Amino acid sequence: MAHSGGPTAVINASLLGLVEEATRRTCFRTVYGARFGLEGILKQDFVDLTALDRARLMRVAQAPSSALGTSRREIGAEGDRLLEILRALDIHCLFYTGGNGSMGAASQIAALARAADFELQVIGIPKTIDNDLAETDHTPGYASAARFFACAVRDIGADNRALPGQVQFVEVLGRNAGWIVAATALARHRPDDPPHLIYLPERPLPLDRLLGDVERVYSRLGRCVVAVCEGQLDEHGQPFGADVRGNARGGLAMNLAHRLASLVTARLKLKARGEKPGLLGRVNRAARSAVDWKEARLCGRAAVRAAARGVSGAMVTLVRREGPGYRASTGLAALERIAGVERLLPERWLDRQAGEMHTEFLEYVAPLVGEIESYEDLG
Amino acid sequence: MAHSGGPTAVINASLLGLVEEATRRTCFRTVYGARFGLEGILKQDFVDLTALDRARLMRVAQAPSSALGTSRREIGAEGDRLLEILRALDIHCLFYTGGNGSMGAASQIAALARAADFELQVIGIPKTIDNDLAETDHTPGYASAARFFACAVRDIGADNRALPGQVQFVEVLGRNAGWIVAATALARHRPDDPPHLIYLPERPLPLDRLLGDVERVYSRLGRCVVAVCEGQLDEHGQPFGADVRGNARGGLAMNLAHRLASLVTARLKLKARGEKPGLLGRVNRAARSAVDWKEARLCGRAAVRAAARGVSGAMVTLVRREGPGYRASTGLAALERIAGVERLLPERWLDRQAGEMHTEFLEYVAPLVGEIESYEDLG
Repeated sequence: MAHSGGPTAVINASLLGLVEEATRRTCFRTVYGARFGLEGILKQDFVDLTALDRARLMRVAQAPSSALGTSRREIGAEGDRLLEILRALDIHCLFYTGGNGSMGAASQIAALARAADFELQVIGIPKTIDNDLAETDHTPGYASAARFFACAVRDIGADNRALPGQVQFVEVLGRNAGWIVAATALARHRPDDPPHLIYLPERPLPLDRLLGDVERVYSRLGRCVVAVCEGQLDEHGQPFGADVRGNARGGLAMNLAHRLASLVTARLKLKARGEKPGLLGRVNRAARSAVDWKEARLCGRAAVRAAARGVSGAMVTLVRREGPGYRASTGLAALERIAGVERLLPERWLDRQAGEMHTEFLEYVAPLVGEIESYEDLG
Repeated sequence: MAHSGGPTAVINASLLGLVEEATRRTCFRTVYGARFGLEGILKQDFVDLTALDRARLMRVAQAPSSALGTSRREIGAEGDRLLEILRALDIHCLFYTGGNGSMGAASQIAALARAADFELQVIGIPKTIDNDLAETDHTPGYASAARFFACAVRDIGADNRALPGQVQFVEVLGRNAGWIVAATALARHRPDDPPHLIYLPERPLPLDRLLGDVERVYSRLGRCVVAVCEGQLDEHGQPFGADVRGNARGGLAMNLAHRLASLVTARLKLKARGEKPGLLGRVNRAARSAVDWKEARLCGRAAVRAAARGVSGAMVTLVRREGPGYRASTGLAALERIAGVERLLPERWLDRQAGEMHTEFLEYVAPLVGEIESYEDLG
């Protein structure tokens, strides 16, 4: 098992599911966990996960972030060495946990093995807070991040209500997809509950429209909470003049909330501030979704069951069952259909008024995130 | 009862204590809660707190932020009108919840009443996350904010450990006092646990020293988590070139963590990012300290007991008892000794190596904040 990409609050639950299912079966002798993903395989730095005692395994499963460590390293020219190492260790099944980039890497490894005539099963386990993987109803990690930010907007909104006279931007993770920021709508229970405005990064946001929206809310309530996704761009395709992170995947603003607060202060002469909980949104245990944890574990188990049936080149998916009440089971989809594909919010959920979310979306997300409790006040 | 200044996670527990104690006593007929502090008094916008049913009162007490609402408004020329309103409503006791600025206002109201020959008792109830009030061992609100940021540094540190190769700045509340940022040391359980560096705003931080410290940690661990207080200044008395909030109390950086991350990237060529949980740090319920909540309630009760004894012009204090184990009781101190005084960390706790906290401080803070659970990993 190797992890790839950013950690989540439930990635260790997938590890638990995988180890549980593998140790129940005689066809797997040892489950190696690669320390720090691809790095660990290349350095032959492994943990024998089958040797962990149950108590430690359960403590690991409860911890957010990745207990094994993860990596953003790409395979590059190391493909041959990678296969050599797996072959030398008699490893014939690779479980790769990650998002759409990682599923691309998994697919690449599967192709290299086929070309080298090395019998290697490659199974993907979905993991991304961004919820932007194709072929699955949703991804483990998403619901906990969504829950964290819905709670954060509720809490910052409680502050904003108690001490009004301010516009408050909350910067939300999610890259170019609006899945997480849209879910902050679950913080609302009463009219005028925050967030008062939500913007979906699937659409550019003209600065003048933002300023007009803020002014309208503020003039009515004397306060305003805005949930904005880190990947939000303006009408020029730019992040409103925010600094941009210089990494390989490029283009994400480093300080969007602050930049927007500064613009509101300068242009509307209103007190404004920006908060950026940032990575807290993907490693928080207090706001973890119970459904998310359970499903991450299921995905780990399903990956082993698929491997035992001889499957390769596929990722485990979550499939929502028809009928009243929320039920999900696992399925499988070809890695090629997921690799590199970024699933954004569907068109029919966009183009609502700023802050209004489509009922279909709310019905989709509510059972994943769970109830966001409201606070009593004397207002 | 009127609230003043920023909300905390436990201000509503002081309200609970006050109402509980007042309703047990025959000498108080009605407890009015002013909506939005001084604003509410001047607008005669009150809630009859004695009329709240017990269930609602308990729900209020569990909510972070101020259920009544609060204000940063100063009395200015409204002193006479304020007294008139209190007199008209037959209010003879004012409970004022706030920090050192608010205790100044309370003191001013007491003086105005004396000068006007209006029999008004004024009692302060301490409330500030900054823990910078004189005459009290600590302040309600502090421990919960400290717990939030210790947990935040632990969580962001778990992400930083799992996906190394990055320097992570976490911006911590606390204005000019290091009480909260120092408490993030409680996140450490094992060697090399975050935060790797902690800076106390009581001392200027030369940029070159910061860069040297970061480089040293990074070259040893390949990662680095830095806890820095929002009020930290450089050797020129400036916030490292960060934007500054233009409010009346002036001078606080708006985007310090981001600014420091940018400087580290530019000067050390390391990947760096800054997170600013901001106001989440003072309204978070998940990280609330149990001791803090209990003591905030005690302070509300003690305020009423003092009033019933005829006390005026004093603030309730928390007094740590001698002996093994943590025990605290309440006391009283004159408002004049607290008004406008900013209690910083004592000199003898400063001038440690960046990140090392004085044992006396750790013994002081640990029982307030409670245990910060560590996460299992496979590192």
